[in-house]
Amino acid sequence: MSISFSVDCKDGFARCGSLLTQHGKIDTPTFMPVGTAATVKAMMPASVKETGAQILLGNTYHLMLRPGASRIKDLGGLHKFMGWDGPILTDSGGYQVMSLSQLRKLDEDGVTFRSHIDGSYHKLTPEKSIQIQQDLGSNITMAFDECTPFPVSEEEAERSMLLSMRWAERSKQSFNDRDGFGLFGIVQGSIFESLRVQSAKKLKRIGFDGYAVGGLAVGEGHETMINVLKMTVPWLPEDKPRYLMGVGKPRDLLAAVQNGVDMFDCVLPTRSGRTGQAFTRRGEVNLRNARHACDPRPLDAQCNCPSCQQFSRAYLHHLVKSGEILGAMLLTWHNLRYYQDLMRGLREAIKNGLLAEFTTLFHEEQSLGDIASIK
Amino acid sequence: MSISFSVDCKDGFARCGSLLTQHGKIDTPTFMPVGTAATVKAMMPASVKETGAQILLGNTYHLMLRPGASRIKDLGGLHKFMGWDGPILTDSGGYQVMSLSQLRKLDEDGVTFRSHIDGSYHKLTPEKSIQIQQDLGSNITMAFDECTPFPVSEEEAERSMLLSMRWAERSKQSFNDRDGFGLFGIVQGSIFESLRVQSAKKLKRIGFDGYAVGGLAVGEGHETMINVLKMTVPWLPEDKPRYLMGVGKPRDLLAAVQNGVDMFDCVLPTRSGRTGQAFTRRGEVNLRNARHACDPRPLDAQCNCPSCQQFSRAYLHHLVKSGEILGAMLLTWHNLRYYQDLMRGLREAIKNGLLAEFTTLFHEEQSLGDIASIK
Repeated sequence: MSISFSVDCKDGFARCGSLLTQHGKIDTPTFMPVGTAATVKAMMPASVKETGAQILLGNTYHLMLRPGASRIKDLGGLHKFMGWDGPILTDSGGYQVMSLSQLRKLDEDGVTFRSHIDGSYHKLTPEKSIQIQQDLGSNITMAFDECTPFPVSEEEAERSMLLSMRWAERSKQSFNDRDGFGLFGIVQGSIFESLRVQSAKKLKRIGFDGYAVGGLAVGEGHETMINVLKMTVPWLPEDKPRYLMGVGKPRDLLAAVQNGVDMFDCVLPTRSGRTGQAFTRRGEVNLRNARHACDPRPLDAQCNCPSCQQFSRAYLHHLVKSGEILGAMLLTWHNLRYYQDLMRGLREAIKNGLLAEFTTLFHEEQSLGDIASIK
Repeated sequence: MSISFSVDCKDGFARCGSLLTQHGKIDTPTFMPVGTAATVKAMMPASVKETGAQILLGNTYHLMLRPGASRIKDLGGLHKFMGWDGPILTDSGGYQVMSLSQLRKLDEDGVTFRSHIDGSYHKLTPEKSIQIQQDLGSNITMAFDECTPFPVSEEEAERSMLLSMRWAERSKQSFNDRDGFGLFGIVQGSIFESLRVQSAKKLKRIGFDGYAVGGLAVGEGHETMINVLKMTVPWLPEDKPRYLMGVGKPRDLLAAVQNGVDMFDCVLPTRSGRTGQAFTRRGEVNLRNARHACDPRPLDAQCNCPSCQQFSRAYLHHLVKSGEILGAMLLTWHNLRYYQDLMRGLREAIKNGLLAEFTTLFHEEQSLGDIASIK
């Protein structure tokens, strides 16, 4: 069998589970840091592990263009190449092809596009995407899909979803099943309930090792996103992991977990870390702000990351203002740690049947605002 | 007494010594990584320590402009601010004022200049420079000097040196002697023997805890630099540390140690690390070079840094080509480790009376060229 998943306990729709892959176990709900170009930006792999991360996401689009999937395969696969021995999930490239590449042309077979790096022409099809992901040695391969734009008419959303479903079928056909490696399907259908349900049913019929909800976090807003989850998740199998792609802010993760989601990925903690933006128990903090310039206190007194244990807000402010790489390193580390702490807290709460209490406390703390503003 | 220094053994003119400061002991010969803006760029302080570094250099010019010396003082000093509990040496700002700032105006009193950050006006005098360095909490304060340009006439070199000597006297006057903290004088005089000797004698008469050779590594070349050392070092006290400022490449360090120098600082290992350039036992390696693209071997098989222990040249090449921060992090780490390994090797060789053998082997290995070119 491919990868195994068990739901160990539930609290409402929220679940705690264990996902077993060739490269180790993942406790769900889980957050996957994004390692776009075979690196979680500004982090050593050992430091990523230290934050509590158990699985990373790699990007097929970026890696196929540079350094190339066959080169990574020749060098022993993505795990070895980037020095990460834990599980890796790769996206299918569909999303990036639509959002990053130029002159893309879509037909039934796949997408032709030009590289954002050197302008060279490439084609991604379901078969090609699966091949690349298997060359990379990905533990969780994602089916190739079209990322439906937003907003979109129901008619266009249906066309796009149906194409993604035919591509999901072809992805499944070309996936080479191996022990410890799995294939996930992706539900599409934009914000339309009948399309989402139809998509979920089609995927279930094809049969996958996990089910992702795609096409969200594209500008639809928190409420709509959660609404789409509410209309979609009930149609997904209970005994398979559910993955909300590209999401999100801490409160998005919390609400999605409440609605039965098990897995997440997002560039937010890493990208924000490179621009002086931090996530804390008291909400978001912009370290560029002058109010931190003389503040000897840690960014988040409850956090165990090196940033909060060893340095002051004044120092972080100085690093960010000076454009120092260490600023990006420390804030990325902190943000990833905060996200992992949040997931750990969620898992504990679910295990103890205290998710409602956890949620109340989370929103209370977040709404208190940053401690540094209370002087 | 201020700081203590003892020469523990000698091999020719080369010495092994121990320098004791309030923040710990330094084994000499030593290389000080440069932490310009209160951070060794792209490195965590703990990682800098792991490379074997025992003392850092901080820049008065940069820190006085941002975040400001009084702010760092209010926050508990530079050690605490940047999370480095080992010794720190600060330069006097003289060199940077001459090379980095705009619209500088020099008179007997000091230098008026405009900040490269915001264009604001500032003045540095010997008294001001010493005050700033003491506010920072520097273990080794450098006397304020004028960095003589190169090339320069003997007449101009003499004028500049004599000014620096008057400033050295004023630096000494305003330095507040404390246990575990010391003040170094700086020999000037460009490439002119009589001026260098005169400068060394004047400084010795004033009396310092250590003696730096300044005004080198400004384009005079390896041979001339070593020549200036040969004409200068014999005039410096045997029982005080000698510091060659802003130097240099590995072979410069080796030759300077042979001529009795104990301390070095240079941006080369850190700056090169951010541009894909590595120092190895087989010479310099440019990781941008396409010949590394598929190379599964480590950068330097004899090196114990994470870069060489965990990653391939192919991966480093990929990071550098992709402009990834991790590339700067790993190569900076490697370069600092290489420099510290070199200093460790030099200390061992001197202790065992094997410096000549060490030198021969060093030049043999360096001249073999990079292993990756031998395919």
